[in-house]
Amino acid sequence: MISITILGSGNVAQNLFEAFLPQDSVSIVQVVGRKLSGLGYFTGRTNLATYGEELRPADVYIMAINDDAIRDVSNTLKIKGLLAHTSGSVPLSALNSHHSIGVFYPLQTFTAGKTLDFSNIPICVEASHAGDLELLHSLGAVVSSKVQTIPSYKRRALHLSAVFVNNFTNYMYGIGHEICTENNLQFSLLQPLIKETAEKIMLVDPYEAQTGPAKRGDQKTLHAHLSLLKDKNHREIYTLLSNSINASFQIRKDKS
Amino acid sequence: MISITILGSGNVAQNLFEAFLPQDSVSIVQVVGRKLSGLGYFTGRTNLATYGEELRPADVYIMAINDDAIRDVSNTLKIKGLLAHTSGSVPLSALNSHHSIGVFYPLQTFTAGKTLDFSNIPICVEASHAGDLELLHSLGAVVSSKVQTIPSYKRRALHLSAVFVNNFTNYMYGIGHEICTENNLQFSLLQPLIKETAEKIMLVDPYEAQTGPAKRGDQKTLHAHLSLLKDKNHREIYTLLSNSINASFQIRKDKS
Repeated sequence: MISITILGSGNVAQNLFEAFLPQDSVSIVQVVGRKLSGLGYFTGRTNLATYGEELRPADVYIMAINDDAIRDVSNTLKIKGLLAHTSGSVPLSALNSHHSIGVFYPLQTFTAGKTLDFSNIPICVEASHAGDLELLHSLGAVVSSKVQTIPSYKRRALHLSAVFVNNFTNYMYGIGHEICTENNLQFSLLQPLIKETAEKIMLVDPYEAQTGPAKRGDQKTLHAHLSLLKDKNHREIYTLLSNSINASFQIRKDKS
Repeated sequence: MISITILGSGNVAQNLFEAFLPQDSVSIVQVVGRKLSGLGYFTGRTNLATYGEELRPADVYIMAINDDAIRDVSNTLKIKGLLAHTSGSVPLSALNSHHSIGVFYPLQTFTAGKTLDFSNIPICVEASHAGDLELLHSLGAVVSSKVQTIPSYKRRALHLSAVFVNNFTNYMYGIGHEICTENNLQFSLLQPLIKETAEKIMLVDPYEAQTGPAKRGDQKTLHAHLSLLKDKNHREIYTLLSNSINASFQIRKDKS
């Protein structure tokens, strides 16, 4: 049995709570936040506490809080167990070394009110001491079949990749949504395409999957698209990405 | 029974062929290409012909050929039935008006060797005459539950949106892939995130779904990411998209 305490109240904290709560091999000791009033989601489901209090003993304290707050909160905590943060971009060394420290980073995007199945979510773990690393592996394996040791410098690169495939991709969806709205088109028409685009690269390398006017260097369509875009910013993005796609195919063509 | 002939031999032609072949209410008369040697995929499965020949009678001739070739091929064809192209960006008027003309645009990305289920693929149809439009609706309905009449000017906007959510999104996947490869990380670690990012916007508006350092204006992480990117082009893309995401959230904040 592994006992855990979750620090934080947001989407990651809520999803970790839902993932661990039904597990026989894990017990949730407490959920801890800045103020009790911010922990409404967990009321009546576990013991609640605030950072200032002396926390109950637990094997692992999982910090699912804002990146900016990790260092400060870790400095103020009075705990004995292993303290692990859940951030993609914060190094292990940001945690106060008076504690046993580690990282427990679930590589996923979490949405308010949407509980995700953890079984396929990669959990990237890191710790300075072998025993701590083993404990984080064991804890991760309770909910996920994809637990991996990833050191800070690699996790940082992974997080950067995640910004491209999640944050920037979502922004592309946002621009598509705007264009649809402006033209009285239902955004839902694009959903099968969005789904297939995401599924396709499970089978083929994104380079092989690339299609469209930019790849083909189809100047007529590129100009027509630019003239349709009313937003200056969208035109800049269209131009930069199209030039960049076209160049990357020219470069590979030249090489081969 | 609707009889059809498919012009073209690429991914769209092959997918239309596979979608219509098993249907009792559609018969495939011929598949037509520039050269018989390019039609190997269809050999032994239907009658084959080249553009120069007099084609057999059919109710609908579906042109699944390159955008650039649509006008020229439509000028040379000797046919009596309805001629419909499958392009997102080419107007109906590009087809030679000596024919009955229409558009039959399946809004999807097709991959060599991957046969897709058409039932959820939106098919955008257009024609000048009511009878032709009805025929295209009937044909589309055989394979898809999402047939809609979309005029050329709206189809053009839809295609532009598709470039953002498919071509540009795929390019974001490509950059994520490159960063993983450079850092000896498996790209497959990102696949659950990619899938969830695509599924999330079926439930929430992409604007609501946006997360990340650019949205938060987290300068520390933005700078750290830029210093990790070795490719000048990737740095430019990172900067433009991050500034643009941040500005779009500032604008909405100012408005509210």
